[in-house]
Amino acid sequence: MEPKSLSINTLSEIVGGRVGTEYDVEHDDRNYDDDAAVTGAAPVVSATAGDATFIADARSMKSLATTRATVVILRERDITKETATGEAALIFVENPHLAMAKAMEVLRPTAHPAPGIAPGATIHDSTTIGADVSIGANAVIEEGARIGDRTVIYPGVYIGHDVEIGPECVLYPNISIMDRSVLGARVIIHAGTVVGSDGFGYAKDGVKYHKIPQTGIVRIADDVEIGASVTIDRAMLGETTIGRGTKIDNLVQIAHNVQIGEDTIIVAQVGIAGSSTVGARVQLGGQVGVVGHVSISDDILIGARGVVTNNLTKPGAYSGFPAINHGDWLRATTISQKLPELRKRVRELEQKINELEED
Amino acid sequence: MEPKSLSINTLSEIVGGRVGTEYDVEHDDRNYDDDAAVTGAAPVVSATAGDATFIADARSMKSLATTRATVVILRERDITKETATGEAALIFVENPHLAMAKAMEVLRPTAHPAPGIAPGATIHDSTTIGADVSIGANAVIEEGARIGDRTVIYPGVYIGHDVEIGPECVLYPNISIMDRSVLGARVIIHAGTVVGSDGFGYAKDGVKYHKIPQTGIVRIADDVEIGASVTIDRAMLGETTIGRGTKIDNLVQIAHNVQIGEDTIIVAQVGIAGSSTVGARVQLGGQVGVVGHVSISDDILIGARGVVTNNLTKPGAYSGFPAINHGDWLRATTISQKLPELRKRVRELEQKINELEED
Amino acid sequence: MEPKSLSINTLSEIVGGRVGTEYDVEHDDRNYDDDAAVTGAAPVVSATAGDATFIADARSMKSLATTRATVVILRERDITKETATGEAALIFVENPHLAMAKAMEVLRPTAHPAPGIAPGATIHDSTTIGADVSIGANAVIEEGARIGDRTVIYPGVYIGHDVEIGPECVLYPNISIMDRSVLGARVIIHAGTVVGSDGFGYAKDGVKYHKIPQTGIVRIADDVEIGASVTIDRAMLGETTIGRGTKIDNLVQIAHNVQIGEDTIIVAQVGIAGSSTVGARVQLGGQVGVVGHVSISDDILIGARGVVTNNLTKPGAYSGFPAINHGDWLRATTISQKLPELRKRVRELEQKINELEED
Repeated sequence: MEPKSLSINTLSEIVGGRVGTEYDVEHDDRNYDDDAAVTGAAPVVSATAGDATFIADARSMKSLATTRATVVILRERDITKETATGEAALIFVENPHLAMAKAMEVLRPTAHPAPGIAPGATIHDSTTIGADVSIGANAVIEEGARIGDRTVIYPGVYIGHDVEIGPECVLYPNISIMDRSVLGARVIIHAGTVVGSDGFGYAKDGVKYHKIPQTGIVRIADDVEIGASVTIDRAMLGETTIGRGTKIDNLVQIAHNVQIGEDTIIVAQVGIAGSSTVGARVQLGGQVGVVGHVSISDDILIGARGVVTNNLTKPGAYSGFPAINHGDWLRATTISQKLPELRKRVRELEQKINELEED
Repeated sequence: MEPKSLSINTLSEIVGGRVGTEYDVEHDDRNYDDDAAVTGAAPVVSATAGDATFIADARSMKSLATTRATVVILRERDITKETATGEAALIFVENPHLAMAKAMEVLRPTAHPAPGIAPGATIHDSTTIGADVSIGANAVIEEGARIGDRTVIYPGVYIGHDVEIGPECVLYPNISIMDRSVLGARVIIHAGTVVGSDGFGYAKDGVKYHKIPQTGIVRIADDVEIGASVTIDRAMLGETTIGRGTKIDNLVQIAHNVQIGEDTIIVAQVGIAGSSTVGARVQLGGQVGVVGHVSISDDILIGARGVVTNNLTKPGAYSGFPAINHGDWLRATTISQKLPELRKRVRELEQKINELEED
Repeated sequence: MEPKSLSINTLSEIVGGRVGTEYDVEHDDRNYDDDAAVTGAAPVVSATAGDATFIADARSMKSLATTRATVVILRERDITKETATGEAALIFVENPHLAMAKAMEVLRPTAHPAPGIAPGATIHDSTTIGADVSIGANAVIEEGARIGDRTVIYPGVYIGHDVEIGPECVLYPNISIMDRSVLGARVIIHAGTVVGSDGFGYAKDGVKYHKIPQTGIVRIADDVEIGASVTIDRAMLGETTIGRGTKIDNLVQIAHNVQIGEDTIIVAQVGIAGSSTVGARVQLGGQVGVVGHVSISDDILIGARGVVTNNLTKPGAYSGFPAINHGDWLRATTISQKLPELRKRVRELEQKINELEED
């Protein structure tokens, strides 16, 4: 894709910012050239002429002096007199991350294959395919599937019977979407992920295990993004659901009949066991575990590696196994790592008591 | 697949139950119509007319009053006078999970592709293919492989050289079965799983690592089910083995030369390091770790997130890192999370002792 | 591939060892036949005539008496008078693992598909393909990719736009290498792995999350090996890098902008969060977690299941959450599991103090 070229003023408008003229007047004679072309984006330390970059917070502001970027996106209040140096033009915004995201969407848009169906794709005659859909080589689409407008299906993707996929979705290579799964609009799924595998359900029959047919589905709402090599099991009966706007990182396991709310963040390698419920605006840190049949209410944060073993109903931060109030966990952990010292103090006390008793 | 329609009496026979007539007489005037057609299955809360459902235990029995299912499978002794209401017909069984599994096998059988070889499959001439095998588009089968009768191979599956696959297996999409792996009868493997990748074996050569060729195989016995995106490494020499009837959940790692017994349950995200042995009827909870070269005897349960660092020989439940008796772990954990309180008590003792000593 | 047949002397030369004649004279009348053909390799307990095997350390030396192998590779100093029995010829080496690796490379070389392009592969006209490359059925190679000499690409591999792959790489089935990733020479990647998926980056926009385009790349240096179903995310800007000679086990997560040094070992199910740095010759044990934006210096070992939450600069072994000195962690853990006893001692002290105070 041909690189864009923008003026600093145009970029500032795109990101909803304000070009740093006042700053220039107050703190130094920085004088930028609005004719300078912004053509790329790069990290602050490796940016070169033509690049936009960003500085997320005051702690990183010393890079402002040395960056070779043409323009830096930042918060005005993060600049101090000490850090107010350098050659770059400035765009002031309230949320540098968000502004940089918007800049990158224009400067370095993600390129997907053009609409069209590759010769090597295998598509059942009954499939309903929307306008401007792209289907890659070796993709397989089974009977009764429906694919929404402008959706992109990369090579090697498998789409099972009666799967419904909304508009403007992106399905990266070698994904498997099993029968009857339902995906909303603008769902992004990264390579290797499996949606709709059987739940892990068996009835004990003596010492042997008898498979319980997993006949429900997975339903994924609009604007969900799912990482690479994630596994989301279909419900035994009913639905496993992922709420609108929720983002799931790589290698996450979501078991059958789990219900996840809206705008929730699930970091890599989290595992959520069967029939548990996770609310809206929840954050599950990396490698968190949630046991089966528990409920996590809205606006709860679970720190990395925590294990949720009971219902959590009060908003706030939790950590540990079992997950407790984050501050309490931190205090307990600090002492826990110094237990030899505590035991020594107990020993000394025992000795002193013995001496006192002998007196 | 055309939906089945069964009478309540027929369904009761299929699940080995008894229709709840006595219950009806004793507790209320519930009067079911044996001509009512059972045509589907659904969770107790969302079931509608025509559905069978089940109630697994007494705690969930209040749903009996409100379910709109045509028939409920349950244990008679779980019903109390308070919960003995509602309109559904009842089928009494000893094991509602098992009975529901059998009902669902009839009411909602898993549909697989019909026998036949898709045009887009790539199959070496030397392959031995049994009767009524189904091979999907873009499946690749290398030289010398053997596929048993009625086995189903979904699209995008890779089957390496000299792989042996027994009868009535199901291999879901995008699985990779590497050279010389052996699968027994009725093995089910979910999408994206890898069987027979190289073990993680290196010999140190100064500071560099020299790859040790991994030339053994993976052998999977009859009636094993393996989840999605599982990885099972081949042995360095010899065999990595999974015993008959064992069930493995998603995203599990099984390293080279691991030996797993029969009827064992391995929950999601478990990792078992090289050359370890897991017995029969073992249960490894979610995210459990087993270090290399240890042995877990038959009939042992490891609680979620436990880490097995030594041989465990006595049947029972273990938890924690290192895994110890589950009850001991529970007690220690409870205190561990209240360490600030314990430390406070030690401080108070120290103060009192000081005062006593000063006296 | 036709099996090799070697004499014991030839094998000894290949592995850089010394045939154990002196040992024979001193300890028993063991007398080997140099004409004996070594044709295979097997574990010491299951080896039969014709096999080479190895014994890694003194603890396993009792197998020497009973093995039916033709030749055993071992360290001379690991043999004692008690274990100096049996029929096998001996090859003395300093590093039995390394020597056995070299023996197996000759006796059981890994067979890959012959050079050539399978009819079912989809390769863009613009691809640069080196000499003697093998590309399997249903592999897809997008515009602008470059594939080095003698590289092997198995079926079902996806290679995105402008990907660069060095010479003598092996890419196993169903791998996805996303746009612009760069792989050095002799890189091995096992089945199902994803390289270059988007990093998990969002800017908060009120309560919703706005995707930050992930426009950087993944760069993998020479002689790296990556296990099955690993996920390595591309950088947001810049590069995610894996250093020369580093080995990564199965189901590992490496987030965006992570930098990993040379000759580092990363065991299965490790997760490394965004922008963290791991040095050279580091070892991360199974299921370790590394939080974002921290740095682990060279020559550091993190024990299995440890969590690195801060920069670690001093070489040595660390364990626990947060990771501390391994010995300190071990002592704290031992007491932690006996906390009920410690609490009991505190209770007894309290009682005694009360009695003393009452006096």
